[in-house]
Amino acid sequence: MIPPETHLQIGSLLFEGLDQIDLTGPFEVLSRIPNATYRIYAPTAESVRDISGLRLTPDAALADAPQLDVLHVPGGFGQEALMRDEAVLGWIRRQAEGAGHVFSVCTGALLLGGAALLRGRRATTHWSAFALLPYFGAQPVDRRVVVDGTWVFAAGVTAGIDGALRLAAELRGIEVAQAIQLGMEYAPEPPFDSGTPRTAPAAILERARSAVAEITARREATARGIAADLGIALPAG
Amino acid sequence: MIPPETHLQIGSLLFEGLDQIDLTGPFEVLSRIPNATYRIYAPTAESVRDISGLRLTPDAALADAPQLDVLHVPGGFGQEALMRDEAVLGWIRRQAEGAGHVFSVCTGALLLGGAALLRGRRATTHWSAFALLPYFGAQPVDRRVVVDGTWVFAAGVTAGIDGALRLAAELRGIEVAQAIQLGMEYAPEPPFDSGTPRTAPAAILERARSAVAEITARREATARGIAADLGIALPAG
Repeated sequence: MIPPETHLQIGSLLFEGLDQIDLTGPFEVLSRIPNATYRIYAPTAESVRDISGLRLTPDAALADAPQLDVLHVPGGFGQEALMRDEAVLGWIRRQAEGAGHVFSVCTGALLLGGAALLRGRRATTHWSAFALLPYFGAQPVDRRVVVDGTWVFAAGVTAGIDGALRLAAELRGIEVAQAIQLGMEYAPEPPFDSGTPRTAPAAILERARSAVAEITARREATARGIAADLGIALPAG
Repeated sequence: MIPPETHLQIGSLLFEGLDQIDLTGPFEVLSRIPNATYRIYAPTAESVRDISGLRLTPDAALADAPQLDVLHVPGGFGQEALMRDEAVLGWIRRQAEGAGHVFSVCTGALLLGGAALLRGRRATTHWSAFALLPYFGAQPVDRRVVVDGTWVFAAGVTAGIDGALRLAAELRGIEVAQAIQLGMEYAPEPPFDSGTPRTAPAAILERARSAVAEITARREATARGIAADLGIALPAG
């Protein structure tokens, strides 16, 4: 826990084609952390569209961000276009080096991997990208939220809400996180039990895998290239 | 369930001072409903800020919306400023009359009440506003998601995700909702059990009630006025 009197700079990365709730889920938590400045940063100060068309506007461009204490990296299909974008990856790398806390959601973890920040870390990501973590030197941990020191990794999409509450507790203590949870009435009751590959009906899982097969193949090719660049031994198989 | 070949017009209301996840939680579901056009409508086509500063941009102004088949009304403190805004309330009323399905999240239910649409309906809202539902002639039901015919009411804030999945199943069948749930990896694991007044630690609940006391008093005064206008007998006490 960080002393309550220490002001925190918290920042989320925003980019074209992110999955919006990777950002807006944690936003609900991060924006309520006491004694903190929370801002959203994107490659430029212009609006972007999430993968389903939601228009989101950053508070400032990456270049105008101060050194952050907490860096939040969301994911979504648009992550793939940034995996060789040194302007964005370099920003992530520099911010992560100075930030005490790094928090990825969904395939935001792959961006941390592209920035060569995952080596030796216990991490997770969206189920469709989970098998790619070893390419970046990470140790995949099949849990919804993985805490590795001061880094927090959330699995896919809505796992960012759980991860952000965990992060809030790390930063400001459990009672702060509990108060935020009450305000956002977060006592989820999913009407179906189809949220993971383990629990989803087989036919639905198969269709979901087919639907992401093309992006998954592209992500794997990129990950293989990055593994080669980093000198990471490729996983067997 | 609506025939899969019937195209759906789905629309969310966006307004200044909403609680962003009341919109962005359901967005993740509604934007993935097959054979549908999903758009966000606001009083003007300009961006607004959510209560914590997130800038959101509508797809079009209210006046440019077609008749919707599904109307989604989020809440948040900014709802209170619209409770006597006949331009917005009239739009909600007209859309709700033509829409087969109406879906409110959090204090979006109070906007439906302000539009005189709650009389006789089983409904819910955020815990801090739950006691106000009878002023609008509604029957409060203390559940996270309340389905009243083709209307769906979600309790506070994050309940909108559960409500939207329920709505998706009503519109397109359970398998569509399950596929959406898998894609968004919605198998929540809140790290604490503080999401409702029943489960939150007493001291945290007390502070939360204090924090919303002023807006709650204003909402109650408004609700009393609307009850008088509608000729609804005030609840005892």
